[in-house]
Amino acid sequence: MLVAHTQFVRFDSLSLDSGVTLTPVDVAYQTYGELNASKSNAILIVHAFSGDAHAAGRDPETGKPGWWDNMIGPGKGFDTNRYFVISSNVLGGCKGTTGPSSIDPGTGKPFALCFPSVTMADMVRLQKKLVDHLGIRRLLGVAGGSMGGMQVLEWAVSYPDQVAAALPIASTARHTAMQIAFNEVGRQAVMADPDWNNGNYYACRPPARGLAVARMVGHITYMSDESMREKFGRRMRERDKAAADFTVDFEVESYLRYRGNQFVDRFDANSYLYITKAMDYYDLSLGYASLAASLERATARFLVLSFTSDWLYPTYQSLEIVNALRSRNRDVAFCELTSTYGHDAFLLTVEEQAEIVGGFLAQTHRQENGR
Amino acid sequence: MLVAHTQFVRFDSLSLDSGVTLTPVDVAYQTYGELNASKSNAILIVHAFSGDAHAAGRDPETGKPGWWDNMIGPGKGFDTNRYFVISSNVLGGCKGTTGPSSIDPGTGKPFALCFPSVTMADMVRLQKKLVDHLGIRRLLGVAGGSMGGMQVLEWAVSYPDQVAAALPIASTARHTAMQIAFNEVGRQAVMADPDWNNGNYYACRPPARGLAVARMVGHITYMSDESMREKFGRRMRERDKAAADFTVDFEVESYLRYRGNQFVDRFDANSYLYITKAMDYYDLSLGYASLAASLERATARFLVLSFTSDWLYPTYQSLEIVNALRSRNRDVAFCELTSTYGHDAFLLTVEEQAEIVGGFLAQTHRQENGR
Repeated sequence: MLVAHTQFVRFDSLSLDSGVTLTPVDVAYQTYGELNASKSNAILIVHAFSGDAHAAGRDPETGKPGWWDNMIGPGKGFDTNRYFVISSNVLGGCKGTTGPSSIDPGTGKPFALCFPSVTMADMVRLQKKLVDHLGIRRLLGVAGGSMGGMQVLEWAVSYPDQVAAALPIASTARHTAMQIAFNEVGRQAVMADPDWNNGNYYACRPPARGLAVARMVGHITYMSDESMREKFGRRMRERDKAAADFTVDFEVESYLRYRGNQFVDRFDANSYLYITKAMDYYDLSLGYASLAASLERATARFLVLSFTSDWLYPTYQSLEIVNALRSRNRDVAFCELTSTYGHDAFLLTVEEQAEIVGGFLAQTHRQENGR
Repeated sequence: MLVAHTQFVRFDSLSLDSGVTLTPVDVAYQTYGELNASKSNAILIVHAFSGDAHAAGRDPETGKPGWWDNMIGPGKGFDTNRYFVISSNVLGGCKGTTGPSSIDPGTGKPFALCFPSVTMADMVRLQKKLVDHLGIRRLLGVAGGSMGGMQVLEWAVSYPDQVAAALPIASTARHTAMQIAFNEVGRQAVMADPDWNNGNYYACRPPARGLAVARMVGHITYMSDESMREKFGRRMRERDKAAADFTVDFEVESYLRYRGNQFVDRFDANSYLYITKAMDYYDLSLGYASLAASLERATARFLVLSFTSDWLYPTYQSLEIVNALRSRNRDVAFCELTSTYGHDAFLLTVEEQAEIVGGFLAQTHRQENGR
């Protein structure tokens, strides 16, 4: 596995939907493969809620593979022998791109809640600056799962001439009440932790307990009833059962506590708040008569993917996108892939997904070369 | 609506599955209708996780109706013109029956985590004492939804000669990994609150923030994607959207915060821990070769009900019970009722449920009289 290095670029300013201008803005990104001479083989990968720029290859420090390493690499779905793949950390995040934990140049201290509200469109506007900076005039594709899919849609309508193929995976054009509700519980868990301290915790200890609870809720929604039954069932951990000490009894509890605590070490609680709000606010159809009307500007070829057991971003939400595109006679392919993994399927169900994505990109590449 | 008065009875002792004996034990209960001369028309209602003895009628202080008032009363599904209905608060609860917030006679202080572990079988053993105390030798029926359904199953196998009809509704014979996971997140939210203080909060302030978060998670699982879309959609509350203050934006957030905070006033956090653990531990088949083998002792007529949109206690769990009973040639009827209300459907989808329950009880009554 190749070693992946994170690169950084600083832009003087970024105008946000809120009216605020951020000055300056840093972006953390990685690239894989080689950009061809005509700069026509670039694919932008946009990450999900808690992702980062490290999508593929091996991290030089931790040795860990990227979050979509099974999909990005030589001969894989996003074939780095053929394509130049870019992955960047989102605005508002905590992995190198400017966010609430960054230093506010005006005060010399972390922004915390003085960081302005950010939107999906703001995230995409910053990605556009990165793509411009790399000298790429038109992306062969933009692809991402979950929140990444929202960014894909935003790219397709905001920069229609710059996107040949759009691949929103296990995603939606707008959150339902249930999706907002799960995010809100996570936010409430963070803000209920006294260590959150109205966002001012960078000089002391972070709201680790609240953030861990928030992540536990998230992990349940990323799995499925079936995958949890297969993975954990009712298997118990050894312990003295007479005592009512509420320690771990079941393996599923142990798993959730582990994942919750692990998350605390790698994620900023304020980023959790800002990014989940950006997801909840996102509504592609806002300001248009319908979702179809909002997608009218898009000219890309679309590949929309969903997964049978994904109850967090269920197939009907992907079909809303498909139907809206089809109603405007746009080029759209749709597949619902069979998986028991729930929402995590886009990270775990690789073989079929890679084949479909690979074929779709190859066809797009041929069409682009004949353009 | 009739005024419902809560009654109390004290028993000298109760032996628990853990080996501990509680001395004494109080039970809070209500009754509706009249017990007939032959004491053959009694129905025991067993409540869900956060329920209490006030199942029907009007509370004399608050004026509020009981949690199943739409199902219990004159001419209703549990027809108090014909039946004598008993409802008692569960062991480990906080509504009058002995639980972790009760005074430990040994110390003069609340038990807190010195309260012993309790099981579904313990809860049912205490209910049996109450039924004996009321002079009832055989119940016409035992009925309950959700956790109540677990108690119904336990009654049917622990006291087969004392139950003519068993009605487990929207329930299961054992929790899956996902059900355990949601309960565990709730427990973690409670225990993450510093005010929980390892269970010792009765002299100071309770872990209100943690308990509210736990309840918010619960409420999401009690609804359905569809019912939340219908009830809230993406409707927003009026506020200044430029500020990133993470107050309420969407109506669904407002609803969850309200329900979370409301719960804190009426429920004890330690009871939350004890009762959710009792649910998670419960496995009717434990110690038997199969679920069917565990139900072999049951001689009651069964009516098993589930609801189409209930994803917390999905229909397949009810069908496991039905299939196990059928494999032992037991008398079992099953209906899956159509509802968009999710798990809450057993509290809200009344008309069809009442008709089915009423007919089933009437037939049982006729059979019992011909016995």
